[in-house]
Amino acid sequence: MELSVPKSSLERVVILGGGFAGIKLAKNLSSKKFQVVLIDKNNYHQFQPLFYQVATAGLEPSAISFPFRKLFQKNKNVHFRMTEVEGIDTANQEVHTDIGSISYDKLIISIGATTNFYGNAEIEANVLPLKSTSEALVIRNTLFQTLEDALLETNREKRKALLTIVIVGGGPTGVEVSGSLADMRNLIFPKDYPELDFKEMEIYLIDGGDRLLAGMKEHASEKSKEYLEQLGIKLIQNCHVTSYNGEKLILNNGTTIHAKTVIWGAGVKANSLKGIPTECILPNGRLAVNAFNQLENESTIFALGDVAQIQGDEAYPKGHPQVAQVAIQQASLLAKNLNKKDPSQWKKFNYNDLGSMATIGRNLAVVEFPSMKFAGFFAWCVWMFVHLISLIGTKNKIQTFLNWVWNYFTYDQSLRLILTPKRRGKKE
Amino acid sequence: MELSVPKSSLERVVILGGGFAGIKLAKNLSSKKFQVVLIDKNNYHQFQPLFYQVATAGLEPSAISFPFRKLFQKNKNVHFRMTEVEGIDTANQEVHTDIGSISYDKLIISIGATTNFYGNAEIEANVLPLKSTSEALVIRNTLFQTLEDALLETNREKRKALLTIVIVGGGPTGVEVSGSLADMRNLIFPKDYPELDFKEMEIYLIDGGDRLLAGMKEHASEKSKEYLEQLGIKLIQNCHVTSYNGEKLILNNGTTIHAKTVIWGAGVKANSLKGIPTECILPNGRLAVNAFNQLENESTIFALGDVAQIQGDEAYPKGHPQVAQVAIQQASLLAKNLNKKDPSQWKKFNYNDLGSMATIGRNLAVVEFPSMKFAGFFAWCVWMFVHLISLIGTKNKIQTFLNWVWNYFTYDQSLRLILTPKRRGKKE
Repeated sequence: MELSVPKSSLERVVILGGGFAGIKLAKNLSSKKFQVVLIDKNNYHQFQPLFYQVATAGLEPSAISFPFRKLFQKNKNVHFRMTEVEGIDTANQEVHTDIGSISYDKLIISIGATTNFYGNAEIEANVLPLKSTSEALVIRNTLFQTLEDALLETNREKRKALLTIVIVGGGPTGVEVSGSLADMRNLIFPKDYPELDFKEMEIYLIDGGDRLLAGMKEHASEKSKEYLEQLGIKLIQNCHVTSYNGEKLILNNGTTIHAKTVIWGAGVKANSLKGIPTECILPNGRLAVNAFNQLENESTIFALGDVAQIQGDEAYPKGHPQVAQVAIQQASLLAKNLNKKDPSQWKKFNYNDLGSMATIGRNLAVVEFPSMKFAGFFAWCVWMFVHLISLIGTKNKIQTFLNWVWNYFTYDQSLRLILTPKRRGKKE
Repeated sequence: MELSVPKSSLERVVILGGGFAGIKLAKNLSSKKFQVVLIDKNNYHQFQPLFYQVATAGLEPSAISFPFRKLFQKNKNVHFRMTEVEGIDTANQEVHTDIGSISYDKLIISIGATTNFYGNAEIEANVLPLKSTSEALVIRNTLFQTLEDALLETNREKRKALLTIVIVGGGPTGVEVSGSLADMRNLIFPKDYPELDFKEMEIYLIDGGDRLLAGMKEHASEKSKEYLEQLGIKLIQNCHVTSYNGEKLILNNGTTIHAKTVIWGAGVKANSLKGIPTECILPNGRLAVNAFNQLENESTIFALGDVAQIQGDEAYPKGHPQVAQVAIQQASLLAKNLNKKDPSQWKKFNYNDLGSMATIGRNLAVVEFPSMKFAGFFAWCVWMFVHLISLIGTKNKIQTFLNWVWNYFTYDQSLRLILTPKRRGKKE
């Protein structure tokens, strides 16, 4: 079956994945030169840096999600198709999806990364990952359902396990979720559940390394540790989770924690795709590309963002960090390069590190710019400003800003709904 | 197993259902006289009059949902329990739920009404009802998924069936959904789906009677008919649906409509509850109560709102209309009555009809007040104002107001997400 798109005399660029790289490229490719087909399994772009706020009932899904069709209303050369990609056929220059196949002149692989469970199926089955809006909503539902359960539990041990939350991974996700949950425990939960004693609630953050936010500098690691401990987070460093059966979490140092809720932010791995020449796939799963984000020996295929790893950049021998800025800059450069007819005019990718930041809780954040680093309230304001202007859509910006202002002054929001819409035809 | 609540010397009132009546009563019962236990299967109150706006991507679920725990943060005598009620035992004055049993001194049944499929299981399995936030989200997801499917369908007949929407029922739900969908077809869908021809999209409204909004006066029926036809709705009156298999809808006049999406707003029936003395249950399923909303021969049990039918009110021989105002007024009076020690001081219910209204589309509504009736743009403004002030929570009011202003000026909103969070432990 053919996946039909309108006939066109333009060169066809098929983009797999509408993350930061995918939408930037689709927007910037010349409408006079390219017909763009964007394929994603969702009908909306997700603003990943704020998943944790949806998970902790600080924002609505719609505030950080943007429908592709609305995004490309004015780009008549861009055609969106919602489907799962099954694989690619490089010999015939075709993409196979569950709604048909489509041929390409140029193929862009921007399928991102997913949660890494390091091959442990038991952990995968029992923890809560946070790599999509949908997963964020599952965490939100679970948090509040578990509190309802705890309220009814008269056995002290069992209640304590219901009230214990473990976050695994000391990167931005782990740090931000921990801080946000600590704020909720300290400021919101006691008002909603006066019958529960929140001294019984413990929040653990387990990190495999010896410093948090290892992608940032020492200063950020120290400050984030200080802030989290100030908020009452129990930090366990230099430890790995060896097993978790849904009740009992065991660490490699022998520690056992009884917890019903484990949020997993311990790492990511590149998404895989059938049909990619195996010699392009690095041992870590990322795709080896040259400085033009082009696959070796496959001049029609490019990979961008989290899934790509540029070879030969001396400043980044292990590849660039898997963050939004890299994806956006790569997509922006690739659009410029492709818009030029002559590949000899193409420029090589050179990452301009604009800095990084993480928020730990109300009034607390760490920020690193190339020229300076700072932490605390001002950093928190900068964090909010940068994330607001990065959100797509004026309405999302306004909605998110108002939510934050509201939450700041009331210490409270009303998104604490346990809401699981049933699927069509699946009556329960 | 016992459903435990804190010990108290106060009389215990157990309220089943946190709709308009349930929350009004819980708020207004004297905290010095009553311990209140409110039971609901959701953890949030739902503002039913705006379900249709969630279904048509005009509002977020959170704008019309309000967590009970937040609502009762300041009412220390009110205890919320999230559970399904299994039945009542009037002899032992107990309520059985799936998390244990609880005894009551007074029991309030405010369990509302649900969709009426008139016993047709085939219809029930294939149509989309609209009696909860969750069902509204299913409609939203289905509408946009169906458009994605239509885009890929090359067979003209099949595509037309995907683009055809049938709304059954000419009451407020049917009229409001139809108008809202017509607005989307006329203003929004063509921008999102330039590849589809929306002349192929037909929206039918099927009504069993000979006038729309039969609960209102002739003027409203005529105006709403005029407005809907103006918006391009195909209205079929004096007809019933006899069967629908998910593809083909058949009417009792022999007409057949091929449609993948059928939204069902054809009527409601009172929810049932095991253990209610059968002599209190009327043939239509509602509970017969006296003018104090008290069950006959069961002086400790009261029924309020949609599920109750006051006997002997000459102005309403068939019972009061199943609308929010009746529920709120009954609950308000019952709280006043119960707060008085002496039942001889109780007042009888006397419905003060404040009027009714329905919105048909952008700039179009019908309003009936006791002293006047009007339609059009001004009615639409009044409709918005009344619904805004009725919403619970300042933040919900602001959020909804901004959404409406935004949608009004941009003819567009960005809530068109197909989002189905998986349940915990149900990996797919």
